Amino acid sequence: MTDAPTAADPAVLRDALDGAWRDVRQRSRGLATDPRFAVEEGEDVETQRRRVLDRMKVLATEGYSALGFPTKYGGSNDIGGSITGFEMLAMGDLSLLVKAGVQWGLFGGAILHLGTERHHEAYLADLISLRLLGCFAMTETGHGSDVASLRTTATYDPDRDEFVVCTPDESARKEYIGNAARDGHVAVVFAQLVTGGESQGVHAFVVPIRDDQGRPMPGVRIEDCGLKAGLNGVDNGRLYFDDVRIPRDNLLNRYADVDREGVYRTSIDNKTKRFFTMLGTLVQGRISVAGGAASATKVALAIAIRYGEQRRQFAGPDGEEITVLDYLAHQRKLLPALARTYALHFAQLELVAGLHETTPDLDAPLDEKPGEHPDRRELEARAAGIKAIATWHATSTIQACREACGGAGYLAVNRLPGLKADTDVFTTFEGDNTVLLQLVAKELLTGYRDHFGELDMMGTALFVAEQTVETVVERVGGRRLLQRIKDAASTNDESGVLDRDWHAEIFEWRERHLLETLARRLRKAADADDPFAVFNNAQDHLLAAARAHVDNVLLAAFVHGIDSLPEGPERALLERVCDLFALSTIEAERGWIQEHGRLTAARSKAVIAAVNELCATLRPAARTLVDAFGVPDEAMAAPIAFEQ
Amino acid sequence: MTDAPTAADPAVLRDALDGAWRDVRQRSRGLATDPRFAVEEGEDVETQRRRVLDRMKVLATEGYSALGFPTKYGGSNDIGGSITGFEMLAMGDLSLLVKAGVQWGLFGGAILHLGTERHHEAYLADLISLRLLGCFAMTETGHGSDVASLRTTATYDPDRDEFVVCTPDESARKEYIGNAARDGHVAVVFAQLVTGGESQGVHAFVVPIRDDQGRPMPGVRIEDCGLKAGLNGVDNGRLYFDDVRIPRDNLLNRYADVDREGVYRTSIDNKTKRFFTMLGTLVQGRISVAGGAASATKVALAIAIRYGEQRRQFAGPDGEEITVLDYLAHQRKLLPALARTYALHFAQLELVAGLHETTPDLDAPLDEKPGEHPDRRELEARAAGIKAIATWHATSTIQACREACGGAGYLAVNRLPGLKADTDVFTTFEGDNTVLLQLVAKELLTGYRDHFGELDMMGTALFVAEQTVETVVERVGGRRLLQRIKDAASTNDESGVLDRDWHAEIFEWRERHLLETLARRLRKAADADDPFAVFNNAQDHLLAAARAHVDNVLLAAFVHGIDSLPEGPERALLERVCDLFALSTIEAERGWIQEHGRLTAARSKAVIAAVNELCATLRPAARTLVDAFGVPDEAMAAPIAFEQ
Repeated sequence: MTDAPTAADPAVLRDALDGAWRDVRQRSRGLATDPRFAVEEGEDVETQRRRVLDRMKVLATEGYSALGFPTKYGGSNDIGGSITGFEMLAMGDLSLLVKAGVQWGLFGGAILHLGTERHHEAYLADLISLRLLGCFAMTETGHGSDVASLRTTATYDPDRDEFVVCTPDESARKEYIGNAARDGHVAVVFAQLVTGGESQGVHAFVVPIRDDQGRPMPGVRIEDCGLKAGLNGVDNGRLYFDDVRIPRDNLLNRYADVDREGVYRTSIDNKTKRFFTMLGTLVQGRISVAGGAASATKVALAIAIRYGEQRRQFAGPDGEEITVLDYLAHQRKLLPALARTYALHFAQLELVAGLHETTPDLDAPLDEKPGEHPDRRELEARAAGIKAIATWHATSTIQACREACGGAGYLAVNRLPGLKADTDVFTTFEGDNTVLLQLVAKELLTGYRDHFGELDMMGTALFVAEQTVETVVERVGGRRLLQRIKDAASTNDESGVLDRDWHAEIFEWRERHLLETLARRLRKAADADDPFAVFNNAQDHLLAAARAHVDNVLLAAFVHGIDSLPEGPERALLERVCDLFALSTIEAERGWIQEHGRLTAARSKAVIAAVNELCATLRPAARTLVDAFGVPDEAMAAPIAFEQ
Repeated sequence: MTDAPTAADPAVLRDALDGAWRDVRQRSRGLATDPRFAVEEGEDVETQRRRVLDRMKVLATEGYSALGFPTKYGGSNDIGGSITGFEMLAMGDLSLLVKAGVQWGLFGGAILHLGTERHHEAYLADLISLRLLGCFAMTETGHGSDVASLRTTATYDPDRDEFVVCTPDESARKEYIGNAARDGHVAVVFAQLVTGGESQGVHAFVVPIRDDQGRPMPGVRIEDCGLKAGLNGVDNGRLYFDDVRIPRDNLLNRYADVDREGVYRTSIDNKTKRFFTMLGTLVQGRISVAGGAASATKVALAIAIRYGEQRRQFAGPDGEEITVLDYLAHQRKLLPALARTYALHFAQLELVAGLHETTPDLDAPLDEKPGEHPDRRELEARAAGIKAIATWHATSTIQACREACGGAGYLAVNRLPGLKADTDVFTTFEGDNTVLLQLVAKELLTGYRDHFGELDMMGTALFVAEQTVETVVERVGGRRLLQRIKDAASTNDESGVLDRDWHAEIFEWRERHLLETLARRLRKAADADDPFAVFNNAQDHLLAAARAHVDNVLLAAFVHGIDSLPEGPERALLERVCDLFALSTIEAERGWIQEHGRLTAARSKAVIAAVNELCATLRPAARTLVDAFGVPDEAMAAPIAFEQ
């Protein structure tokens, strides 16, 4: 290492982290200094909800809401900027992030991507400006992950040219619906479209739920979900529909339509593929959640590291009390998590850029839009995987930060309780993490081909079984030999653990090996008496493969991100952070890697020692690394983060 | 296995789990059905505080508060029953657990164990009956873990026969003090005792903080700590003392006293030993926290497993939707945690019994009390270790339960948010977990001998360096050979992973090996130029040794607990639960075990496969296993835990 870690300039680092939409980020940071966005703790639910709505209005006035919409309706046609703006909101008020996400990402996104011109004309300008608040009513009490099995129905009545929306029973009520309990006037409702006695699968419909006076519309029943662990500024509610009639035109008919006579027509014949195409247009929600989770993690790390740099406890040999961040155990709690946060940040930059590139020009007329971008399918799988890993990372890291701040971390004023509670559900909403990782594994097994199985679990097994998966047969003898040579060479040269090629090799091999062996196991399901048992026995294997894939994506993104920096102390510093990310990941997986003959005991111990050394090396740069996130003081807010 | 897991009777299991103080447990369960103890969510802070105080009064009336005090003052002289009662409170209102712990465990415990007859006469009857509420004012803003370095002073003024209590600066204010913000009238204040210009170390003093009208006493400033992540029914506050005068008699003088002339006398000459003897009498606080954490964990597991047995998602091959607890990934989230909860339960039973046995008869006059029980020192180390592991286990398990319940787990009404938020600080208070594990490791290295070093970290290194630790020198060649033989034998016989002797051997060897190698590393600190660096580099090793020790304690307690059951389906079931505990622990540590040549790759894979199989085996008994905890329906309360 030629440069001392302390030589790095946080402003230079921040500029690199800010990426393509750095102007949006800077504007968002300015917003945090607006007193109307001051962090508040301990308000009652009604006050929080009112405040969040007020902040929404500011976002609308200041143009944030317009970013992701066509210029024709007052938008700015900048989907990447839109997601980046959402991500930055998460440094402050997470209820605002979620409510804004519901209004402009989910509700607005459904109108934009699933609707056609008549819907755009009717709703877009109003929803951007907040004259109209809306809901995204997909999840039901009985079906959250398995949304293809939703049970709300929308039955076409040709006599009156209307759909009749109906909640068949309690478990089919719409559940956890943001904007429903208080502010929403319409909802995009996902329901089984029935016409001529036949169900055509889940489609989206615009259903008014409140009148101008804010009273529920006839046939609509609304309940408040009540107090939640966090995000209490979002008015989540339940919706029940008792034969609610809506005009036929309220079907969001981008991919399928019903004519006056009740004949169903669609541009995508395969029912499952049609449904997933509809869901796929909503990928931006998952990307926003991943970004929001990363932002909250950054705030927590900034607080904990700034505190850990000041807080002293127990006298050292010279009698002076030692800064807690100088203890290895404290570094171990925070620095590998910080390194992974960097990896996730770079992956998020790529994800947002990928979304921007693969989303057709928002201003182009619908009939001139090109077909699906060839990279879109891969992007969706990647978004699912990064969402899962980023949100679990947020949960564990914010927890570690709370503990690292001791009793002070338990006080609401120091922000960590709010960050924890608000982000907790991120692992669940916009797709349960476990289910998302299964989706990732399935996409990997099918090689991103144009195949859409069910989002379910059994579907994966059967689908794989039907496929001729191109699996490199593992020739055990030969492979083992090669490895032994490698290991023999490396055992005596433990410095090799810092070699980036070796990291890449291990990461890649781990993913490939998990996938190959997984494919072989799952193919047995086709002939098995109990295919569910075959699949279920391999479920941990499936999840491990998806995790390995995401780790691989993160490493590649990190390396790519470093390449965007010129030579200098900042780049040198990030190389060390990347080392820590790679090696702490290998360390965490070393049980499995050893089992598969790819790591000798000596080299495994060398990995642990290297993680410890990297912690010590990076300790003096810890403050620089969190400063580079550019968390505004007003968003950090925690008194313990500032000089005592 | 001769008995099907489903043959076990939860009532028989519960009786075994209830242990020696089953009558106290049953009475506590009855309390949960009292409408005054109904679980409430979403109340404002003031309402919560009022309600918790009202519940305290019920506890006093019903005799719960009396359990741990001498009969002379209205107590029942049953320390074990007292701790058991606290533990059960944690199934319901955790603020009540903590406020009761402050009042009767910490404040009452300090008066009882650190005070003498005059203090007992003056305070015990009133504090039991709740005519007097008190605080335990130890922690300061600047010193929490390193309590020997507290900076509040109590200076003897012989002219007026008084101590003058003073907070020298902001960082020496008493922080997070329960009962301080609202209800407490006196505080046991820990301060440096100064007499004749000399400091004698930290001692405890009774200081009135409010007058009869509830106004702060002259010179006492009280602040409210404000909103916390949880436990908002407890009125935590800050105390500042500006030359507050108290009579000399207010020194709690069991172990040391100052006479009228200001001469200091003590029965324990070594300053550090004296301080730790004072702290040691308060071990019951740590045991209560461990028990409380275990109770909260049980409630969370009961909710998540009952929900997981009803909740269905995604259709199986026969078209019927699959119960989520049938998925391996779901079992993996909950069942190993359930197995560890059983292990912790049995360890807690032993801990409480140990406390009861090693605590001198509360009714015996002070001058007739025997000296310290020979097992007391080990009990204290064990309590520290189990507190750390039990509270971390609570944090991770309740989080897993929240996620396993999806969006429903995020609603306050389903209890998991409250359980999470309330127990979060358990990893910090009554001793930060990381610091406690260091204490455990140090006690292990010194062989429970009569040596008390500082509670600090450097002290550990230097102390070990000074000691002649009896370390079995690891003869690498010979040991490796023996192992290879063992491994060779076992590789081809993978059924051996269910062998309890093998579990015990691995658990024991892991602890011993970590301790031996640790001792060797730390001894180098004596001669090192930078002893802190030697110590600090080994800190993760130190923590690993302590964890290994606690795991060993848990396994032994589990096996011992099983022995208390007669042959039958319940015993057979617990054997399988113990298998899962042992093997999931080995699985989690398999990276390290492989590195140390004690597990072949094949056997390591067999361990993973066995964990998966045990999950499937225990799945049908999951409900029985949580029913056996005997969580009253009224304490569980979560609607999702009951049939939909």
